[in-house]
Amino acid sequence: MTSTHPFDKALALQHSDLRAGHFTGATSADYWNMVGPFGGTTAAIALQSVLQHPDLLGTPIALTVNFAAALEAGPFDVQATAVRTNRSTQHWTVQITQPGTDGTANMTTTATVVTAARRETWGQSDLPMPADMPRPESVERFSIGPAGVAWLEQYEMRPVSGFIPAEWDGSEQHSESLYWVREAEPRPLDFASLAAMSDVFFPRVWLRRAKRVPAGTVSITTYFHADAAQLAEVGTGYLLGRAAGQQFFNGFFDQAAQLWSQNGVLLATSNQIVYYKE
Amino acid sequence: MTSTHPFDKALALQHSDLRAGHFTGATSADYWNMVGPFGGTTAAIALQSVLQHPDLLGTPIALTVNFAAALEAGPFDVQATAVRTNRSTQHWTVQITQPGTDGTANMTTTATVVTAARRETWGQSDLPMPADMPRPESVERFSIGPAGVAWLEQYEMRPVSGFIPAEWDGSEQHSESLYWVREAEPRPLDFASLAAMSDVFFPRVWLRRAKRVPAGTVSITTYFHADAAQLAEVGTGYLLGRAAGQQFFNGFFDQAAQLWSQNGVLLATSNQIVYYKE
Repeated sequence: MTSTHPFDKALALQHSDLRAGHFTGATSADYWNMVGPFGGTTAAIALQSVLQHPDLLGTPIALTVNFAAALEAGPFDVQATAVRTNRSTQHWTVQITQPGTDGTANMTTTATVVTAARRETWGQSDLPMPADMPRPESVERFSIGPAGVAWLEQYEMRPVSGFIPAEWDGSEQHSESLYWVREAEPRPLDFASLAAMSDVFFPRVWLRRAKRVPAGTVSITTYFHADAAQLAEVGTGYLLGRAAGQQFFNGFFDQAAQLWSQNGVLLATSNQIVYYKE
Repeated sequence: MTSTHPFDKALALQHSDLRAGHFTGATSADYWNMVGPFGGTTAAIALQSVLQHPDLLGTPIALTVNFAAALEAGPFDVQATAVRTNRSTQHWTVQITQPGTDGTANMTTTATVVTAARRETWGQSDLPMPADMPRPESVERFSIGPAGVAWLEQYEMRPVSGFIPAEWDGSEQHSESLYWVREAEPRPLDFASLAAMSDVFFPRVWLRRAKRVPAGTVSITTYFHADAAQLAEVGTGYLLGRAAGQQFFNGFFDQAAQLWSQNGVLLATSNQIVYYKE
């Protein structure tokens, strides 16, 4: 039975019978952002094409997605290519294109993915979950109001600190946000949803300046620190997300983000570089 | 006149007359690591191919390099392709190959690069340089001794804290390192050397465990927060480098790194995911 969860529908890909690694899909109105799809779904689609490739080795380790152009509403093509397969690691390139008006392919997204067959080793964390976080149930859920941005409705976000400024008064503050997040319609965590949730943080420049300047992610890199057991342990539970800007310079800033399970396991670390206009 | 600096020699690329974006080069013995070239030079070569491409727009914003296989000593091919050029940003894919024994191309490295024509905007930092750093001249230079790793000799490293353990006694500690670094033979900072210096940090797992387990970078992403003026201000001066591991899990850990100018300007932020054996 095909899942009716909006995320599964957004990620539905058909694998071509004719060409290995060629998939087709369509953008989802459920995850529409202001001028294109939510970048998290685009990143998840790039990853999903690799995960559905018949030649896949292992599970995701690293994902870099470059947003070359906003996808337009409608169908798209994904080409996932295993460019190198080693004994325990595999390197992929992915490209998402849309048919251009003149019949040529319009490049919207490039990505690289590393997958690997993990082995059990020593492990440790040097980035523990921030202490004294309130339980998610005790934090009020962010409600969108009339903003009209569809993808925000797909996530249940419970901001602990540093959420979207209540007043756009130009007052400056540190750009760190902490919030509990999970999908609004419960869905067990998997690598694709973890990739998407690495991009749920609104532009740091808005928080930093209490000013809503045009901004958009140019490139995002997510590292996965989980396997099936860690994901299963989370299930449909909350993740604690932390995001902070680092350097804001002449039109671009970077953001470091982390996602912990409610039990304090650091499941993913993610970085992105974001364009801002002024 | 051709530069005789070892870094310039390592990065020397010849552009093909026949195919746009096709370059040839050769690995450098000066930057040899244990089982291949220092990853920082490989990253810099990928970037350099874009910077030397006749179609280049702007300056580097983001660089992701995936180390699919160690390069062997000898010649290599680089193909840099501008897959999308927008009004002010440009998206590139890069591949480094070497001739295989059977005549086919052996894929060693994939990369993506984003360049952009920056405009002057508001700016700020949310990641200041650590306070109370001793001046570089007051910190003893790390001396290699008989390790026999060539690339380490190309950098003047002055460790403030968290350097390579003096004793491999298995004692655990946080994986943060701070050190002053510049090229051993003075060379004015440019984007290529900034890319290389983003990878000068030895494997965090060695520091974390005081145990020298086999480890190697799988993928690195560097964001540039500088333009020509910031680079010129540094010149041949020191950078303060900070690196820390974040999560160590079943064979892979990630490392976050930052490079500040001695005046406290955050020039680059970099993240990498690293394989470790046990």
